[in-house]
Amino acid sequence: MAEYIAPLEILIEQFRSLKGVGRKTATRMAFSILDFSNEQTERFANAILDAKRSITHCKRCFNISDAPVCAVCSDGRRDPGVVCVVEDARAVMAFEKVKEYHGLYHVLGGVIAPMEGIGPDQLHIRELLERVNNEPIREIIIATNPTIDGETTAMYLARLLVDYDVEVSRLAYGVPVGGDLEYADEVTLFRAMEGRKSINQKP
Amino acid sequence: MAEYIAPLEILIEQFRSLKGVGRKTATRMAFSILDFSNEQTERFANAILDAKRSITHCKRCFNISDAPVCAVCSDGRRDPGVVCVVEDARAVMAFEKVKEYHGLYHVLGGVIAPMEGIGPDQLHIRELLERVNNEPIREIIIATNPTIDGETTAMYLARLLVDYDVEVSRLAYGVPVGGDLEYADEVTLFRAMEGRKSINQKP
Repeated sequence: MAEYIAPLEILIEQFRSLKGVGRKTATRMAFSILDFSNEQTERFANAILDAKRSITHCKRCFNISDAPVCAVCSDGRRDPGVVCVVEDARAVMAFEKVKEYHGLYHVLGGVIAPMEGIGPDQLHIRELLERVNNEPIREIIIATNPTIDGETTAMYLARLLVDYDVEVSRLAYGVPVGGDLEYADEVTLFRAMEGRKSINQKP
Repeated sequence: MAEYIAPLEILIEQFRSLKGVGRKTATRMAFSILDFSNEQTERFANAILDAKRSITHCKRCFNISDAPVCAVCSDGRRDPGVVCVVEDARAVMAFEKVKEYHGLYHVLGGVIAPMEGIGPDQLHIRELLERVNNEPIREIIIATNPTIDGETTAMYLARLLVDYDVEVSRLAYGVPVGGDLEYADEVTLFRAMEGRKSINQKP
């Protein structure tokens, strides 16, 4: 018995297919399942199938949704003049938690990543331009992640949007609130210096 | 939309029920599922159900098995005179990887943990004593984990086995091979000193 028995090995491989899960974690999780009762196991498997079956993408902004139009887009109190462009639905959730943003979103479904063969056509960029044409949008806030690919995508979008009558902004860079300067990386510190704001108290 | 939509929230909660998985990891894994194709999702859910359905416990040693008697117990080349007592099937796998142990196992199914309400009756201790009575066992190696509960259980078993004609041993404590003494905790260092072995080369 050099390896695990087949059904366990298969389950471990399945857990490994989840993002960020290595062999050790997958093995631990597979053993957890073996400790489950039959009812717990059924519930687990059903939650997976149900989520996949019932969750779709909002046809307007591509946020995840269990209805054709997502909860944000169908909320009449949101400002349709501001659209925050994000990489994925997780970013939408992150902003929603803050509860300070009252505009809409547009989920790109990734970023331009030539190394992985992802170009603008694989993202919901065409649909963004359609929205800019058809909706009363005043401002587009580009909120892709502060990574190289996120930057590239932000620059690409900014260039595309030059031809449209819409203001385009990008999230501010700086030191994270509550963080320790000692642990901030150099690029972040440089950006924080560059973006410094006057706090002079003029009489 | 202060929370995730219901089917996603349910899936996250299911992932959280796996050992050692917190809210953040569970959320990441749930989003992974949403990125799966329908076929991938079906395969994942089926692997869970199949593993649970087909994996049972060996009726002799309680190791996990897809047959009534596990691969170790049914291997005629193993020495039935030596039984290594472990907490769970994961420990069996760990020893099997070494490929140097040729005896059998006995899986307790946990350790005595009064704080969690687990007493000797919840473990396969009665079955171990039956094996000592009915099988040609010469030696019992107690290989519970080097934790407080593992120690308690080892001591409990050692006391029980005093009445039987069988040698009882415990895994050696010491500094882990390849480790750095600087990082070894004090208890381990103390045990390593206590268990020191002579390397005198007598003429």
